[in-house]
Amino acid sequence: MNRSLPQEYSQSGLPSSVSVYEVSARDGLQSQDRTLPVATRLELISRLSAAGLTSIEAGSFVSERAVPQMADTREVLEGLDLDSGIAYPVLTPNQRGLDEALNAGARDVAVFLSVTEAFSRANLGDTREITTERGLDVARSAVTSDLRVRGYLSMVFGDPWEGPVAPEEVATAARQLLDAGCSRISLGDTIGTATPGHVTVVLDTLVSAGIPIDAIALHTHNTYGQALANVYAALRFGVTEFDASVGGVGGCPFARTATGNLATEDLLWMLAGLGIATGVDIEAAAATSQWLSDRLGRPLASATSSAITAERKQAS
Amino acid sequence: MNRSLPQEYSQSGLPSSVSVYEVSARDGLQSQDRTLPVATRLELISRLSAAGLTSIEAGSFVSERAVPQMADTREVLEGLDLDSGIAYPVLTPNQRGLDEALNAGARDVAVFLSVTEAFSRANLGDTREITTERGLDVARSAVTSDLRVRGYLSMVFGDPWEGPVAPEEVATAARQLLDAGCSRISLGDTIGTATPGHVTVVLDTLVSAGIPIDAIALHTHNTYGQALANVYAALRFGVTEFDASVGGVGGCPFARTATGNLATEDLLWMLAGLGIATGVDIEAAAATSQWLSDRLGRPLASATSSAITAERKQAS
Repeated sequence: MNRSLPQEYSQSGLPSSVSVYEVSARDGLQSQDRTLPVATRLELISRLSAAGLTSIEAGSFVSERAVPQMADTREVLEGLDLDSGIAYPVLTPNQRGLDEALNAGARDVAVFLSVTEAFSRANLGDTREITTERGLDVARSAVTSDLRVRGYLSMVFGDPWEGPVAPEEVATAARQLLDAGCSRISLGDTIGTATPGHVTVVLDTLVSAGIPIDAIALHTHNTYGQALANVYAALRFGVTEFDASVGGVGGCPFARTATGNLATEDLLWMLAGLGIATGVDIEAAAATSQWLSDRLGRPLASATSSAITAERKQAS
Repeated sequence: MNRSLPQEYSQSGLPSSVSVYEVSARDGLQSQDRTLPVATRLELISRLSAAGLTSIEAGSFVSERAVPQMADTREVLEGLDLDSGIAYPVLTPNQRGLDEALNAGARDVAVFLSVTEAFSRANLGDTREITTERGLDVARSAVTSDLRVRGYLSMVFGDPWEGPVAPEEVATAARQLLDAGCSRISLGDTIGTATPGHVTVVLDTLVSAGIPIDAIALHTHNTYGQALANVYAALRFGVTEFDASVGGVGGCPFARTATGNLATEDLLWMLAGLGIATGVDIEAAAATSQWLSDRLGRPLASATSSAITAERKQAS
């Protein structure tokens, strides 16, 4: 029995293939104490693409002072083959960031909207009305420049200051992003508190409001251990894109000790077990997770990587 | 927003209430490097019952030499109020263990069968045929003594030596346990490799073979991060009892660095979010997890407890 691969038991009603959208090199690294040099960030991205990932966020064009971990994203992009067929989106929170991304040759960008007032002020630095207009302007401008644009929605399943978020509010923001030209809307459970029923209700509200299911991605955090159960609920609803991060690297800056993003390897294990194609090699992803753990100088939070590593040690 | 509780979004087709079967004081402690004294084990059990848990495994009557962590289980039982309405099952792998349990006043016992030959020899010390007959004999004998008996099945979803396990083999063993008088069969994903489709197929096979869904419990390990997604799949199938351990304490002795049992707090978070009643207080369970972590002198693996603790520190 190859214990680096689960047994396969397909289920009816689930997608036959899904896309894993890898966020470790951006969302993951930006919250780490240790800032990795450009060469290491490029090696991470190279390992991720070698594992079979085809959507790999490469960095963000933000203030170097505010997010030093993402400095020199231009050099990262310059080190990548942007014609390879692999998408290397970069985060562009404002027009200046978008200009820098265009200058660096980016083909894919991402913008952020908050669905709550409090997170908009805390994280995006202005009222929700202003940050929403800014994000939508950037999206429209990017589309004019023939870029593909992904729209992130933050705090979709609740906000630490404001509490519950109405699913209808999420649908309205998703509609704004689509109308601005975004090709995919990533629903962020920023604080990781959602459970499968909640995910299902939000998806149902969006689809009922006319948002195509193919335009939706789910971005889970494993802060309360719920990430993979929520992915399973979304799979049952027909969602075909999931954000994840090797080793689960990342985390909400407002709860730094909490677990971060869903680990890519744990996601891959479930998808492989369900017979859902991803094109990604679990062992290569797990090896990349261990490699990144060494670079960051701390253990990462993927159960699957820990298990595979333990197996290997035992076998050797 | 009380971030120690999830928002509630019920789903149709799920049970309205389930039983959480707490295994930390037995399955959890038996694999720890540090052996806790009887008084600490009793305090753990007391905290668990105060949190609202009503099925709490209290220990096992096994060789003290083989499992020193479970020595003095008799004294643990003597320290408990066995008439309180809370069930305190003890593991009785053989007739001598059952005799000791009876002498100590136990009302609930548990027996183990392996569904694979290799695990039977490695863990139960004899051929599968012999260990199965021994387990069934103990179950029948316990029933004759008016005890309630739980039957555990190990390696239900795969075996590290033999590989895949036929679901029909599981159904046969479950039927044997029921016929011997067991009131509940706990299906053990001992190595934690199962995924939701696999769980669904095994449940479907058992129910098709005439095993009542009310007689089935699911015992998950989070070794590959799949435990809660598997619980969600089982809930959709109608399973109403789930084994869990505060702090996720426990683990397969054959992969000691791997994550252990499903953490009770992470399970409670999902169940509360789904509006499924358990009678158990999440914050009290999380506090018990932190307390146990201090007693064992190491961090435990519950995402929910880590998140709640981080929230509290931030709030204070």
